[in-house]
Amino acid sequence: MVMTQRIAVLGATGSIGDSTLAILAAQPQHYDVYALSGFRRLDKLFDLCQQFLPRRVNVPTAAVDEFAQRLSAAGLDIAVVGGAEGLVDIATDSQTDTVVAAIVGAAGLPSTLAAARAGKRILLANKEALVMAGQVMINAVKTHGATLLPLDSEHNAIFQCLPLAIQQDHTQIHQPDHGVRKLWLTASGGPFLQQSFEQMRQASVAEAVKHPNWSMGQKISVDSATMMNKGLELIEACHLFDLPEDKINVVIHPQSIIHSMVEYSDGSFLAQLGSPDMKTPIAHALSYPNRIDSGSQPLDLYALSGLEFIEPDLQKFACLRLARQAMQAGTQATIVLNAANEIAVAAFLSGQIRLTDIADVNEQALTEIQVPLLNEHADIDDILAIDKVARRHTDALIKKLASS
Amino acid sequence: MVMTQRIAVLGATGSIGDSTLAILAAQPQHYDVYALSGFRRLDKLFDLCQQFLPRRVNVPTAAVDEFAQRLSAAGLDIAVVGGAEGLVDIATDSQTDTVVAAIVGAAGLPSTLAAARAGKRILLANKEALVMAGQVMINAVKTHGATLLPLDSEHNAIFQCLPLAIQQDHTQIHQPDHGVRKLWLTASGGPFLQQSFEQMRQASVAEAVKHPNWSMGQKISVDSATMMNKGLELIEACHLFDLPEDKINVVIHPQSIIHSMVEYSDGSFLAQLGSPDMKTPIAHALSYPNRIDSGSQPLDLYALSGLEFIEPDLQKFACLRLARQAMQAGTQATIVLNAANEIAVAAFLSGQIRLTDIADVNEQALTEIQVPLLNEHADIDDILAIDKVARRHTDALIKKLASS
Repeated sequence: MVMTQRIAVLGATGSIGDSTLAILAAQPQHYDVYALSGFRRLDKLFDLCQQFLPRRVNVPTAAVDEFAQRLSAAGLDIAVVGGAEGLVDIATDSQTDTVVAAIVGAAGLPSTLAAARAGKRILLANKEALVMAGQVMINAVKTHGATLLPLDSEHNAIFQCLPLAIQQDHTQIHQPDHGVRKLWLTASGGPFLQQSFEQMRQASVAEAVKHPNWSMGQKISVDSATMMNKGLELIEACHLFDLPEDKINVVIHPQSIIHSMVEYSDGSFLAQLGSPDMKTPIAHALSYPNRIDSGSQPLDLYALSGLEFIEPDLQKFACLRLARQAMQAGTQATIVLNAANEIAVAAFLSGQIRLTDIADVNEQALTEIQVPLLNEHADIDDILAIDKVARRHTDALIKKLASS
Repeated sequence: MVMTQRIAVLGATGSIGDSTLAILAAQPQHYDVYALSGFRRLDKLFDLCQQFLPRRVNVPTAAVDEFAQRLSAAGLDIAVVGGAEGLVDIATDSQTDTVVAAIVGAAGLPSTLAAARAGKRILLANKEALVMAGQVMINAVKTHGATLLPLDSEHNAIFQCLPLAIQQDHTQIHQPDHGVRKLWLTASGGPFLQQSFEQMRQASVAEAVKHPNWSMGQKISVDSATMMNKGLELIEACHLFDLPEDKINVVIHPQSIIHSMVEYSDGSFLAQLGSPDMKTPIAHALSYPNRIDSGSQPLDLYALSGLEFIEPDLQKFACLRLARQAMQAGTQATIVLNAANEIAVAAFLSGQIRLTDIADVNEQALTEIQVPLLNEHADIDDILAIDKVARRHTDALIKKLASS
């Protein structure tokens, strides 16, 4: 008999949620959708409840009663929990085998960390869990025997290219022993790869969010345009694979076919390639160490041509340099960078600053904001306190810039 | 304490031998060069004996006495054995841990098979072991618990991209269980990729042996020009990885950076990339499941550009079609194809036939030569008998063609 994995999809109404649920729907014999959560798109969440019949669902605290009534009126016996506490409750539920951590931003942090402390299998799409709380997360995973499987296409690609011994304990690569020389994160280079810094400076919001290969939300599209996205992924990769930042290179590969690589001491590079479809890494992580059909369109190799590899220009894409700098400085700096960047991107999207100002704001924030050094015993409150300070200070920086 | 692997390098004076010995020389703490063999380049073999001080060395039977005297005169205490029996003796020596099977052609067959039957770790560069005796070899490996590690850059790449469970027992992939959908053998396309069939027909020997990426011997360079090389590799891959030919695709990738790929059911392609340097696959196989430094020039990813992927034209490269046809027909057909091709290539190199005649000769040989079906209990004598018939018949075909 095949064991059924019970899955909690936190962030079920977003794009990772969509792809995950499409796979789960196609493989009902292997997976049981045990719990779902949603935040803004509650009508969509309701439809998903009707389709997947989870046992538990999480909505914002203020929406609990109404959502419960709506489910009940439709004859659905689904327990509704609310807010951050409800998310933690679902993530640590003894019935939950696997948590798909797909809530965007700091809001996903407590439930992801709670899942790690409950020893769950975590499919991680929430970047902030590692950018803001890398050491804390990894410690929790190690201490409580949790399993961390990356869903980001880049990190998932690297995971697939690592030796099994490291896959099974990737939070402590004893790197020389396994012959891993470097990791190579590939980047599309975003919409301004072929344009000058001046053209980038003049870019409108519409131009900045137009990603060449992947269809993504606005925040992440801007991060892709500035390459801060790759910087954040670099920080994630350092934590996920227990490597210093100088062991991780970034290479621009505009076709986004190779999703990342591992370079070995014998000269081998192992790479994972595929269509730009999140269903592939999600299916990989869901079924690991087996493989299931993801339902993604197979890559047509014969249709490929002109795959390119370019060294990133760190003057044009200063955010990438800042990410390395923050990683070297420590977790407090990566929290500041992440917070400053969120505020700066929002300011760009609302027309207060230019696209190229984002890097300047981030650099100023990193330089100016005084925060305590975090040690390995830091907890989520320490992290959120730094995040708060950084956001407030960056707000002030933006006001000054916008009024100058 | 690190175990030292005792290595017998059969075919030590060829190019695989060169690369192997360069790695072994750089890693004396891990490897002990226990035995060497050479055939034509005995001066070079003598130098290697002086450098590596093996305990045993194999030379052609007629050269044993003289070589032994020469070693003795130089104060070297190395036991000399002769001929095919001597090779088998070294390959099955209880002191030999690992056999590097790098003898070219059918001459390498008995010693490689003997190594399999002695349960050795075999690093396989001898194509004929699988093209002529695939089933027999694989049965011997399974029955006697030998380990077969491919040195061909393509097969080594595929091996690296397979899941560990298959690597550890790759002679019996239970393919659906491990999610392997297809293998992709990459091919350079050879020197005539961009030329017409007519230009290929008119090609001189010098043009035909000019391989764009790898520096290789004449026979294999011609095989690369006709793509018979890829056909033979396809047959090898079927045996090595226990897959039918229709599960193995060939894709022309003129830059020879991606050395081959495995396609998985979730849409992932895992690929191995590297400089075109045999030291990488050899170092991989020597140190497997660990990794050592191969001494190969690291691939400069930033210098790459325009990686292409092209579907092979089976009219122009008819040898590739013939290889699939032979694989479907059975081992007796792959023996005939291999023998006919060797004769036809020699005839081209000596100016008797045109480059494009090679495929015609091969096709005629496959169609006309009557040989018994081989079953799984066939042994090396049955194989060599078919090989002999095929060579004789092909000789006659060539004479007819050359005189017409």
